[in-house]
Amino acid sequence: MTSSATSHARSRHVSARSNQQHARLQRIYALRTREERQRTGLYYVEGLRFVAHAVQHHIPLETLVVCHSLLDHPFAYRLVQQQKQLGTPVVEVPAAVFRDLSRVLEPQGIGAVVRQRWESLEEIRPDAELCWLALQTVNSPGNLGTMLRTSEAVGGAGVVLLDNSIDPYDPAAVRSTMGAIFSQRFVRISIAAFKRWKQHHRCMLVGTSPSAPHDYHAVTYQRPTLLLMGEERKGLPQELQALCDIMVRIPMVGETDSLNLAIATGIMVYELFNQSRLNNNPC
Amino acid sequence: MTSSATSHARSRHVSARSNQQHARLQRIYALRTREERQRTGLYYVEGLRFVAHAVQHHIPLETLVVCHSLLDHPFAYRLVQQQKQLGTPVVEVPAAVFRDLSRVLEPQGIGAVVRQRWESLEEIRPDAELCWLALQTVNSPGNLGTMLRTSEAVGGAGVVLLDNSIDPYDPAAVRSTMGAIFSQRFVRISIAAFKRWKQHHRCMLVGTSPSAPHDYHAVTYQRPTLLLMGEERKGLPQELQALCDIMVRIPMVGETDSLNLAIATGIMVYELFNQSRLNNNPC
Repeated sequence: MTSSATSHARSRHVSARSNQQHARLQRIYALRTREERQRTGLYYVEGLRFVAHAVQHHIPLETLVVCHSLLDHPFAYRLVQQQKQLGTPVVEVPAAVFRDLSRVLEPQGIGAVVRQRWESLEEIRPDAELCWLALQTVNSPGNLGTMLRTSEAVGGAGVVLLDNSIDPYDPAAVRSTMGAIFSQRFVRISIAAFKRWKQHHRCMLVGTSPSAPHDYHAVTYQRPTLLLMGEERKGLPQELQALCDIMVRIPMVGETDSLNLAIATGIMVYELFNQSRLNNNPC
Repeated sequence: MTSSATSHARSRHVSARSNQQHARLQRIYALRTREERQRTGLYYVEGLRFVAHAVQHHIPLETLVVCHSLLDHPFAYRLVQQQKQLGTPVVEVPAAVFRDLSRVLEPQGIGAVVRQRWESLEEIRPDAELCWLALQTVNSPGNLGTMLRTSEAVGGAGVVLLDNSIDPYDPAAVRSTMGAIFSQRFVRISIAAFKRWKQHHRCMLVGTSPSAPHDYHAVTYQRPTLLLMGEERKGLPQELQALCDIMVRIPMVGETDSLNLAIATGIMVYELFNQSRLNNNPC
């Protein structure tokens, strides 16, 4: 091969690599939409905390995205080296490209494409954990992420998402979980199938509503507990209230007609957690 | 006056009015920045719920902004008429201008410029209410608004903001209060002055930290209680911890190293609320 032919082949090789990289990045950008996340079963996480959490939870990374000029943590370097040795595809990008891909003000130069985890309701054993959340309508992905973070804090198992409600793998939801996205568990099921499941499985399905008869703090919760949290202000629709073993209210004074949904969930799961702690360590 | 002179005078009048309106709208736009809110002592609220809450709380509206083509609620019409009769300046704008001013997807065609309310620490009597929040660092205005909404729900008085921390009159904070912005009370004070105040006033200053010795649920809170909430993950700086009468922790399991600040605040104020309810209505 002549020198000119070698140079030509190299440039063709570089161009093919660059095209492949461009296509990969386009696929990552596309994961911002729910449609693409649903189509591929993938999502994108960014930041050292998130990538390290995924690795800790033995969640295989489909692709690692690295920007060396932004990466300044020795631990991050080691993580990248380990992933290369494990054969994880690594896309190296310049700072401008990484910033473009990023949704934070000060990107840390590391991100990863990760496979979503979903389970069927038949697979879960709700009695093994403190509680499961069940949700139909959550308007803010950030709120959902915060609920998962709080569930993790009390040893809650995860969330049963009814019908086609909010996507926990939305970037804003993922960010608000602070890493709980990798340990919390996810089930998506139709309300009809949930109703059937409920008929054949022993559990305490607790619904919340501002006008419910029972004070949440005066109820003894029994495992397995499923906490069905309704929409802010609107509460739970009748068909779901009818399914609950008990409806409880979180009392409020003044003119307040509702709590933020993540706050209400936090108050409920800490009530369950406190009761469980007192039972395990009686005073 | 000739017909031409009348027409000229009218057009000059219209143009002067239009210039005045333009200037008013520019001043409202400017309230998006903290500097302008600080300079003027004003802020902007939008939506029927917020304007109605302000009126209910007898907070005089500096200016009412109305877009008749977006306003479709009879109650809103009555409110606008009442305010006109009270002499409130009303700026009427077309839909495009209102949408431009608005920060929500479906604006309701009503907004108002309102004067901020601030009190000095000497004016407040903390023992009259369930609790006050004290905050140094809150990174998200939405989180601050949610904390005020929860404080309102338990009958908390308001918030003492230390040093030059976050602005409760930030539009995102105001929106998250769901109206509590008009009933919660606000104090801004330097840490040095807060320290002096603390030395001369009897109150239980409760700080929170993940490594604190006392479980929040095992402590009996005494009025007046001031809840000093630290920054997420970083917690309270040493100089503020030293000022507290007691440091408590909200227990967490698993890998969680912190809770969202608004969630932690919600759990704390509901603990105070529950203790207070039990004391008032002993089982």
